[in-house]
Amino acid sequence: MFLLTPVLVAVVCILMVWIFKNADGATKRREEEPRARAEARPWVDEDLKDSTDVLQVEEDADEWQESEEEVEHVPFSHTRYPEKEMVRRSQEFYELLNKRRSVRFISNERVPMEVIDNVIKAAGTAPSGAHTEPWTFVVVKDPDVKHRIREIMEEEEKINYLKRMGPRWVTDLKKLRTNWIKEYWDTAPVLILIFKQVHGFAANGKKKIHYYNEISVSIACGIFLAALQNAGLVTVTTTPFNCGPRLRVFLNRPANEKLLMFLPVGYPSKEATVPDLPRKPLDQIMVTV
Amino acid sequence: MFLLTPVLVAVVCILMVWIFKNADGATKRREEEPRARAEARPWVDEDLKDSTDVLQVEEDADEWQESEEEVEHVPFSHTRYPEKEMVRRSQEFYELLNKRRSVRFISNERVPMEVIDNVIKAAGTAPSGAHTEPWTFVVVKDPDVKHRIREIMEEEEKINYLKRMGPRWVTDLKKLRTNWIKEYWDTAPVLILIFKQVHGFAANGKKKIHYYNEISVSIACGIFLAALQNAGLVTVTTTPFNCGPRLRVFLNRPANEKLLMFLPVGYPSKEATVPDLPRKPLDQIMVTV
Repeated sequence: MFLLTPVLVAVVCILMVWIFKNADGATKRREEEPRARAEARPWVDEDLKDSTDVLQVEEDADEWQESEEEVEHVPFSHTRYPEKEMVRRSQEFYELLNKRRSVRFISNERVPMEVIDNVIKAAGTAPSGAHTEPWTFVVVKDPDVKHRIREIMEEEEKINYLKRMGPRWVTDLKKLRTNWIKEYWDTAPVLILIFKQVHGFAANGKKKIHYYNEISVSIACGIFLAALQNAGLVTVTTTPFNCGPRLRVFLNRPANEKLLMFLPVGYPSKEATVPDLPRKPLDQIMVTV
Repeated sequence: MFLLTPVLVAVVCILMVWIFKNADGATKRREEEPRARAEARPWVDEDLKDSTDVLQVEEDADEWQESEEEVEHVPFSHTRYPEKEMVRRSQEFYELLNKRRSVRFISNERVPMEVIDNVIKAAGTAPSGAHTEPWTFVVVKDPDVKHRIREIMEEEEKINYLKRMGPRWVTDLKKLRTNWIKEYWDTAPVLILIFKQVHGFAANGKKKIHYYNEISVSIACGIFLAALQNAGLVTVTTTPFNCGPRLRVFLNRPANEKLLMFLPVGYPSKEATVPDLPRKPLDQIMVTV
């Protein structure tokens, strides 16, 4: 009797420990599942989901509360065209933009920098969350800098194609004859790297929130592409799959900036080809209620 | 001695259970911290971070592997302008777009629907990840549908302003005189709701991955805004803060579509005003290397 009691107590205790451990394990496994799902997005650039993208709004006492002063409101001046003119303008604009293609064969011919300035100024007219204008356009003309960018990009792209992307994505891109060799990064006279500022700084140096910064910068990129096409230059819209952080450091951009897009800009080379892809007709992209 | 042993064993066992529980708790708290940070983004619409946005690429056997056939490549035809003409065109395009403002006072005057068609066709020329064209433009003209949309939106917006956004954001928006009353949703002759398709469907009904769908649709939205400005119509770019799911269901859009942006479109009303905000000059948004 006296001998059995300690053994019994020990067995009960070991059982309790085992039961507790197991119950915890099950809870933890259930909790981990959604996180694993959330991480299975290999095409979201490492840099895009950088933790600095996540700002704490309520708790971070180090952020700056804007002063309450109101901005003056002024009458809006508008240019109105007659209805026929509106139809003609909208038709011509569509036809101009419908000729735009992503061109991967870019000549090394010099482009007028005044045009690049105007295209970036046009992109800078995009709307942005609470008018934060969270974009930086880095224009690279220096041949050595361009070459180093190509090297960084090809190193990372090769790893993407061979390891990170998975067979389905590589197959999807194969149709477009896309791989990790980016010759146009050397030949294009201008590389434009568009950074999103995941937060800004107020006058006193404290953090200023940039609401919806990725959407805002992407909208600016859309206007950039329209402006470039209107000027008669070509590019290919490229996302910085995993090489964003290295390029940011190489180009000395601050930590609040993340590379969103990079665009080699120039004239098309004489032998430029494009995949013969159709666009969806209007009735496949528009629904009227 | 015999009496002490069971007590001692029991004490040791209870201690063990307590230690194990505590160690687990600490681990779990550490694990939960980044998740809590990730959730502290009140300006990211509930719908935008909908779990359907997260596709499992490698594991989901139900997704469709594209066939390996290559698309034919064709010569690219390009319109090249003389250098002076390029500068003039880019300058004029910038000046046109620099007049664009987010206008919250929209007249109820009818707009030519052919113009809306052309503007959406222009937006549909945007580039997209692996040419997936992941956008749906819902054009609402029916007054009852418009009114119901306004009701849904104002209900959710009121909760946003009073509960979800926090004082800093409300202050940031106050400068723009923005609140939850959206009169222009009733008066604007056309509401355009832009949905991103977080995935598509292959011919056999299986899921087709839409890489970077949010960025692609935002780029299309940028081109949309340029096209609208070029045609002489106005809008205000609005994000569907939390009312996306209700509006999607109300408009009978499928579950793979998420509301990204909504835009009331029309002519400005006669008394339209805009906040007197400057845009950043070129040297604050461009860096040359």
